[in-house]
Amino acid sequence: MKKLKVSINVVRRLPRYLRKLDELNEAGVGRVSSTELGQLLALTPSQIRQDFSCFGEFGQQGYGYSVPVLRDRIASILGVDRRFLTVLVGVGNVGHALMESRCFESCGCVLKAAFDENPRLAGSKFYGVPVYHTEELGEYLRENCIDLAVLCAAKDKAQEMADLIAANKVGAIWNFSNADVTEPENEVLVENVHFADSLLTLGYFMAGRQEQ
Amino acid sequence: MKKLKVSINVVRRLPRYLRKLDELNEAGVGRVSSTELGQLLALTPSQIRQDFSCFGEFGQQGYGYSVPVLRDRIASILGVDRRFLTVLVGVGNVGHALMESRCFESCGCVLKAAFDENPRLAGSKFYGVPVYHTEELGEYLRENCIDLAVLCAAKDKAQEMADLIAANKVGAIWNFSNADVTEPENEVLVENVHFADSLLTLGYFMAGRQEQ
Repeated sequence: MKKLKVSINVVRRLPRYLRKLDELNEAGVGRVSSTELGQLLALTPSQIRQDFSCFGEFGQQGYGYSVPVLRDRIASILGVDRRFLTVLVGVGNVGHALMESRCFESCGCVLKAAFDENPRLAGSKFYGVPVYHTEELGEYLRENCIDLAVLCAAKDKAQEMADLIAANKVGAIWNFSNADVTEPENEVLVENVHFADSLLTLGYFMAGRQEQ
Repeated sequence: MKKLKVSINVVRRLPRYLRKLDELNEAGVGRVSSTELGQLLALTPSQIRQDFSCFGEFGQQGYGYSVPVLRDRIASILGVDRRFLTVLVGVGNVGHALMESRCFESCGCVLKAAFDENPRLAGSKFYGVPVYHTEELGEYLRENCIDLAVLCAAKDKAQEMADLIAANKVGAIWNFSNADVTEPENEVLVENVHFADSLLTLGYFMAGRQEQ
């Protein structure tokens, strides 16, 4: 499948499509038109057709899309049918929240191990996942072929941890440490998550309302 | 200040500008050009000038931007200088993580109270914030003028809680419950946060690499 030159804005809309299609699928809806999907997602039908056209033909003019087929195609494009081997670095509130949300399983990731600075956590299991001391992270990464590291370490340790992860050939970092990490020397995919960004966006609209 | 018809993509870039300008400010950098800012943020200078032009004139051609002035203007546009009165519904892992991250303070929000279903938490304080039983939420909202509710309730309770919040004239919901909530009848701003969306975006690129 050709996936070149797809805009990041299109990619970021795909999970929303997947979520809505999962809902429709569960509700037993067999077909959906771009108009109906657009109404459900507050997008125009032409936007939806344009987004899908980046990945080939998904439907037939006038017949709409088969919900299960479209769902599976988008899930596959997003890697949900893979087994990305994953480690979690930092078992604090965010780490717990991520494990609890079951987002790894739903996104094609298999959480193999967690690491924490707290020696009292080492040897325990959370949600069936073994926890080791952070000192063991480098050795673990050298001995296991890991696709993704989820970084929930403290802000001041984030870049150091990211460097260790990148040096051990992990392909991607999902970073919740509240510090933007960069790995320009290594070909590591980095997704920095900042809770505040989303709150500030809401703040923009709240401030706008107060001015009306 | 006119803020009409600004695209959501521009709004979502503003927090990234703010974060980078905060860093530059702390590092004592006084001026920055759109070219420099573009290099730091992997955006083109023309994109940056175009984004800022949505909000009026921020700099002078050839002189770049004053870092503290630009920082304060963007902070103000995002409502960081306001005092949005805020409640948190659901003191689980995500709720704790949000309180711990201090994102409320940094985004112009004042967390006044938290609510949880667990009666053992009622009467306690987390990070200085009093916790009440969820049963008291409706009354609290009627008696206090709250701008924002942060929804970290269980998925199956999310819409019910959102309806209660909306019925009590809270203007905005920041929703972490992993269920999209909607309030079409009420004029409530809703920002749905899904951890999985960000992980799926990373999955898209990881899957693309494996195919190369």
